[in-house]
Amino acid sequence: MSSVSTKPARGMRDFLPPDVRRRAYVIGVITGVYEQYGFEPLETPAVENLETLMGKYGEEGNQLIFKILKRGEQLDEALKAGAAADYADLALRYDLTVPLARVVAEYRASLPKFFKRYQIQPVWRADRPARGRFREFYQCDVDILGTRTAVVEAELCAAVSDVLTKLGFTNFIIRLNHRQILNGILDAAGVATDKAAEALVAVDKLDKIGRAGVETELQGRGISAEAASKLLGLFEQMASGAASGEEIVSNSTNREPINSGLLAQIETFVGEHAAGQRGIADLREVLNLAASTPAAGRIQIDPSLARGLSYYTGAIMEIAVPDLAGSLGGGGRYDNLVGMFLGQDVPACGFSLGLERIIVVMTERGMFPAGLDGAPADVMVTLWPGAPIAPALALAHELRAAGIRVDVYPEPDKIGKQFKYASSRGIRQVTVLGEDEIAAGTVAIKDMQSGEQRTVPRSTAAREIKPDAHS
Amino acid sequence: MSSVSTKPARGMRDFLPPDVRRRAYVIGVITGVYEQYGFEPLETPAVENLETLMGKYGEEGNQLIFKILKRGEQLDEALKAGAAADYADLALRYDLTVPLARVVAEYRASLPKFFKRYQIQPVWRADRPARGRFREFYQCDVDILGTRTAVVEAELCAAVSDVLTKLGFTNFIIRLNHRQILNGILDAAGVATDKAAEALVAVDKLDKIGRAGVETELQGRGISAEAASKLLGLFEQMASGAASGEEIVSNSTNREPINSGLLAQIETFVGEHAAGQRGIADLREVLNLAASTPAAGRIQIDPSLARGLSYYTGAIMEIAVPDLAGSLGGGGRYDNLVGMFLGQDVPACGFSLGLERIIVVMTERGMFPAGLDGAPADVMVTLWPGAPIAPALALAHELRAAGIRVDVYPEPDKIGKQFKYASSRGIRQVTVLGEDEIAAGTVAIKDMQSGEQRTVPRSTAAREIKPDAHS
Repeated sequence: MSSVSTKPARGMRDFLPPDVRRRAYVIGVITGVYEQYGFEPLETPAVENLETLMGKYGEEGNQLIFKILKRGEQLDEALKAGAAADYADLALRYDLTVPLARVVAEYRASLPKFFKRYQIQPVWRADRPARGRFREFYQCDVDILGTRTAVVEAELCAAVSDVLTKLGFTNFIIRLNHRQILNGILDAAGVATDKAAEALVAVDKLDKIGRAGVETELQGRGISAEAASKLLGLFEQMASGAASGEEIVSNSTNREPINSGLLAQIETFVGEHAAGQRGIADLREVLNLAASTPAAGRIQIDPSLARGLSYYTGAIMEIAVPDLAGSLGGGGRYDNLVGMFLGQDVPACGFSLGLERIIVVMTERGMFPAGLDGAPADVMVTLWPGAPIAPALALAHELRAAGIRVDVYPEPDKIGKQFKYASSRGIRQVTVLGEDEIAAGTVAIKDMQSGEQRTVPRSTAAREIKPDAHS
Repeated sequence: MSSVSTKPARGMRDFLPPDVRRRAYVIGVITGVYEQYGFEPLETPAVENLETLMGKYGEEGNQLIFKILKRGEQLDEALKAGAAADYADLALRYDLTVPLARVVAEYRASLPKFFKRYQIQPVWRADRPARGRFREFYQCDVDILGTRTAVVEAELCAAVSDVLTKLGFTNFIIRLNHRQILNGILDAAGVATDKAAEALVAVDKLDKIGRAGVETELQGRGISAEAASKLLGLFEQMASGAASGEEIVSNSTNREPINSGLLAQIETFVGEHAAGQRGIADLREVLNLAASTPAAGRIQIDPSLARGLSYYTGAIMEIAVPDLAGSLGGGGRYDNLVGMFLGQDVPACGFSLGLERIIVVMTERGMFPAGLDGAPADVMVTLWPGAPIAPALALAHELRAAGIRVDVYPEPDKIGKQFKYASSRGIRQVTVLGEDEIAAGTVAIKDMQSGEQRTVPRSTAAREIKPDAHS
């Protein structure tokens, strides 16, 4: 017995056929909607130069990047020099946004002015695996580059709403905030500008660790107790004006007055902070435009939404569904990221759906269509013991040419064993082709559910076989 | 200006929208055929434990595996110990066959007795990049596990033939050989059994480096000059009986007598070598069965075909098309590989199509359907300068709800600029929604090719827009 483990690597998963079919179904719905919105597909390599990724995701992000060891002479040289930081030259893709920024910088001249792309590929993070958290997971990203207008945010919220509705989600909301509003609130609370990024990392955890936890973390990150307390007080005050808990994800809530009220409150808080005021104007425009799209009634202003990644500059969004800690996806505006590669800013905004979370929720709630678990074939061609095999393969070919999905039992076992196998695979029909049938130019077709068996001419066999619901 | 390179990593590629559409088209055809043959989809992680991959691909293979650096404390410990071989714990998938063997060993109890799976995923090899050779490339694998019958080889050759025919390839052949026949021939030439694997690595290069090159390499690998010369003499003698060069890929060639003649010749060569004789019987059965499938007339016995990978045990196959050095794919029987994980052999045979090669050939020969390069949307909604934007988004929503692919121009630019953009994107129709149209409940639809513009009621707009050929 071999001692090699047969498990996938830690935090990684094998997807057996029923898993792949579920994933393909969700990806198909997402792709269909994004194509309807005029987005085009992009794919980038799993492996990026290490320097492309480093410094783009904040300090915590840097540590979660999988690094690839140098090879050959370059490795030998690095080992000789002995600087461990220099042993790796490549890294696994950490998200789909930084590669997009690189691509836009590289191919700018050949891309349309408004580049609208979707990208559905795996990313890798060396995170501690936990329930629903994996080291390889798919992101489904959709981004629009080249313009600063709020049409972009509205279209993205609309597309994501369409996706979720088509997948069968009825109760979801899109939490909406703005990085410049957050900056304005931080400023009003007395958080120093150079501590703003640190403060946001802490505020981002409000849902997870609560007010007391965030207050401790803020002080740990060098924000004064006074500023921390004032900041959390502001959030609390605003939360009291917002819909809470269950309400926030109920469809019946009319969010318009709540959103207007919140934005008016925020306006008072941020005061003279010019960027914060522009952020408020941005969100008002997003709300106004989104009201004419499938995102109508879905958007909820949430001044405590921070989002972890450091590259956001404007609106930020996150999807919430009832009874689910964490979100199904999120995104935001990042007008400076392409500039880190191109040396010239290209405005950009995007949304990323988390495939794994969507599948977990859909599985738990039985939201997948029944046909996905259908049989792997419409019919199984059996091999009659002792009869020649070639005519059975010829039959399989004839049926496939007619569009039928055909499995072939590969061994001339006892026929009862072959029938049993078909049943165990959920294959509803089998063909029998003994010497008599071969001589007469006929084939017997047996229905495994009714047990009924009928003999028909070979030439009409394809018409006699009913496709399985799956196909 | 940033100094970070915006190129993809060496040997890796970005796929812009037209590239992705071509790839998706080929993958769609392959998937469709494999599903028709009763194969089911499998996906495995990009990252495997290093020990899962090491020692499975031969010595050259080992060196081409991308290794992932350990992280955190484990890395610190490894660095402290200073054994460079211990710095990595994970590796990137090198092929789809070893992960399949691992999966079969892990989930054997829940898999069907005859496990038929297809898997279309990227693999990574730290090879020197060259024309058509990349460090990230897709394999399209199809395998049947659980039986030793030649039905498997015949079905695989049939499926692959169906795929290539559906993609538009008319001239292709499947070269067929058998590892046990090669062992018989090596034995007859006087190559020691423990040098057989080494000899096959050299013979595998016959197409690339010719007879003299192989003879040198054989001797470099410790095979006696006499055995090397005798071995190459045998191949030459057999080649003279086979169809040559152009003939081998011509459809009009009747390969049956050639194949029979070659097998008779080989039978003489391998003499009393029992495994070799069984190999000949195997291939006769494959030829007999395949003659009743879409692989009929496609298979050509080629006793010099060796295939590089070390895990093959029986039939080996490789696809050749005219005017292409190298192959579009290959495969074979590997009855012992699962046993390396399970401790118990599971017979297996598979075929791998190389997506990159197929796409290179199809692009060069103009084999892609024209519709693939269609417009990204059926219609573009313009924003009339000064008019409210929300009604335009509402119109986009109405059209999308009717199944139309709709792009929205995101800025209220001069209308002529917006028209020009639509034309530059190949979008045939645009909508115009000024204050007058909004007031009247109408919309103007302009055909960018004819220049014709007509005003219709909003409620009938969806019916007036013709889908682009692409959709």
